[in-house]
Amino acid sequence: MPNDRPPSRDKLLFTPGPLTTSRAVKEAMLRDAGSWHVEFNDLVRSVRARLLALAGVSQEPGYEAVLMQGSGTFGVEAAVTSAVPRDGRLLAVTNGAYGERIVQMARTADIDVEPLRTPEDTPPDPAAIARALDADAAITTVAVAHCETTTGILNPVEAIGCAVKERSRTYLVDAMSSFGAIAIDIERAGIDYLVSSANKCIEGVPGFSFVIARRDALEAAEGRARSLSLDLVAQWRGFERNGQFRFTPPTHAILAFDRALRELEEEGGIEARGARYRRNHEALMTGMRALGLRPYLPPEVQSFIITSFHYPRHPVFDFDTFYRKLSDRGMIIYPGKLTDVDCFRIGTIGHIFEDDVRALTDAIGAALDEMGCRPLDG
Amino acid sequence: MPNDRPPSRDKLLFTPGPLTTSRAVKEAMLRDAGSWHVEFNDLVRSVRARLLALAGVSQEPGYEAVLMQGSGTFGVEAAVTSAVPRDGRLLAVTNGAYGERIVQMARTADIDVEPLRTPEDTPPDPAAIARALDADAAITTVAVAHCETTTGILNPVEAIGCAVKERSRTYLVDAMSSFGAIAIDIERAGIDYLVSSANKCIEGVPGFSFVIARRDALEAAEGRARSLSLDLVAQWRGFERNGQFRFTPPTHAILAFDRALRELEEEGGIEARGARYRRNHEALMTGMRALGLRPYLPPEVQSFIITSFHYPRHPVFDFDTFYRKLSDRGMIIYPGKLTDVDCFRIGTIGHIFEDDVRALTDAIGAALDEMGCRPLDG
Repeated sequence: MPNDRPPSRDKLLFTPGPLTTSRAVKEAMLRDAGSWHVEFNDLVRSVRARLLALAGVSQEPGYEAVLMQGSGTFGVEAAVTSAVPRDGRLLAVTNGAYGERIVQMARTADIDVEPLRTPEDTPPDPAAIARALDADAAITTVAVAHCETTTGILNPVEAIGCAVKERSRTYLVDAMSSFGAIAIDIERAGIDYLVSSANKCIEGVPGFSFVIARRDALEAAEGRARSLSLDLVAQWRGFERNGQFRFTPPTHAILAFDRALRELEEEGGIEARGARYRRNHEALMTGMRALGLRPYLPPEVQSFIITSFHYPRHPVFDFDTFYRKLSDRGMIIYPGKLTDVDCFRIGTIGHIFEDDVRALTDAIGAALDEMGCRPLDG
Repeated sequence: MPNDRPPSRDKLLFTPGPLTTSRAVKEAMLRDAGSWHVEFNDLVRSVRARLLALAGVSQEPGYEAVLMQGSGTFGVEAAVTSAVPRDGRLLAVTNGAYGERIVQMARTADIDVEPLRTPEDTPPDPAAIARALDADAAITTVAVAHCETTTGILNPVEAIGCAVKERSRTYLVDAMSSFGAIAIDIERAGIDYLVSSANKCIEGVPGFSFVIARRDALEAAEGRARSLSLDLVAQWRGFERNGQFRFTPPTHAILAFDRALRELEEEGGIEARGARYRRNHEALMTGMRALGLRPYLPPEVQSFIITSFHYPRHPVFDFDTFYRKLSDRGMIIYPGKLTDVDCFRIGTIGHIFEDDVRALTDAIGAALDEMGCRPLDG
């Protein structure tokens, strides 16, 4: 896909989302669709079907795509509160803020939850999960984030899925920032619920999330919801009944998503999009290495979605100044989210290209020069 | 405000929302804003302050505006689950589907709820509410819809508020389809939580709702939430802490809302907007009367927001055909939602004008002619 982005007064977003989107995706919102009207219902049906196709599954033998208003967290909460029976127990595998968010949402919903933590730079060990399940028959459900955007670490969701499935537990994957750019074999991994969002690798605008779920898991979850709005099963049955959202849909965000899905297909699907993001990531690593900036994660667990970098070891470095200098150059990076380590983050997803990333690393060099931070102490 | 709507391929939406919006509101979405960036945080701060001003209240002496991702129902649920203590009881005053939805969301959240029902064409009697409160000291909270869009009936929220406040209960008003076009004296009515949505009378696009709340009510509601995503207090504290949404905001919908608020101000505020909608409604009633079509509600309780009409009494009338014939003419009306009576609904809110309404009633006449439904039997 060429960089056909027209000039824009917008700053480029090197973030984990909301992202820079194409002009055409935004222009798709220059319409007002009637949420009850047949044309819109057809669009929703088409979007749901194309999400299943993108996920590599289909209604036969038994998957469903359920859209949910709100941010990605709303979709994760809808899935978590469906996936855990009222008397069940959740094993929340966590190595970052999004894993911890699952712990927190379970606790808020009065769901019995047991966190299984590894350090933020360490993927969970499927064997440890297997042992935890063997040791506690009360655990009904396992949840894990695929790409934990706290750091950018990629967790081994397929190997974990094998351990979960061998023990016949329900399996939920938060694939928020990976779906659409990293292929996941949902059937082989035994994933019952996979959650992602409109404004991540599919490059739509924020406004809703979606859950790819096994139909039998949804049917078993009937009546579990603690929230009317976030009742995933009722939402699914609403789509099945009349093609409609139960409650007002974000019509414009869905028009944009339709266009974004088409652009993903035209780019060549998950593989081509992942390849572009990988090139973005490689350009980033090359540029940052040349500047002497060090990534937080070892390369073997680093995703191409988002990368955490240590603050430069220099006495006058100040993140706020650094951020503002990049912003003045039209580039928005992201603060760190690590518990104990000072980092900033750079996303390499969205409608951005290698040239943009090279412009970013050039700008980072110039900003560090201006701040008197170079040469770095290493 | 003149009808400066440029030609569009979109059908006009005579619905209760999502609505027809101005071109400029939609064009405001042709940007990608960084949700963590200072410019966007400033915009969110400005939107919250202007919502308070529009509501006729302010931070001093103690009101707050809290935005919530998702549809209006998400905002109502966030407010209901905050407004009712864990050991409290909710009196849900209802005469339509949106009142019943409050009953249902309370039950799903395990909140003790007592419905107080009147027929769909009958406003609740404040004296009956006073008696219900006197008879049951366990009731902590009263909730009612202002304009019940099931029918278009306007409920006496200020008189109810007096009864509620005299008895020192918490008071929640679902002003979804009225806020921005019908003035409500929030302080005098003693409203603790008022909920509305971006895509109603402010004429933004769907994607979030908002709650105008008394700060002391919010502070008292700490820890009541049953849902992380819909935790109204945590959402408020997030805005206070760093100006940000806790979870990804619908950035484009907020850019559109900023523009919509400006257009509301330019039109002349609530009074001028309400006057335009009233003219729309009067044009509708004149046109429908001339066609022999009868409104469901008596005029003294009918709002100018949305109007329910009986199906024409004619043996060959068929709603689906009627709807399609209007749709073919570029006009979308809304089906009925009444329990026992066959009605359809016509909204007179959004970026539409008297001429549009006259074009609609002309189209209705033509459609009925084509269907062989005229003259009507009366």
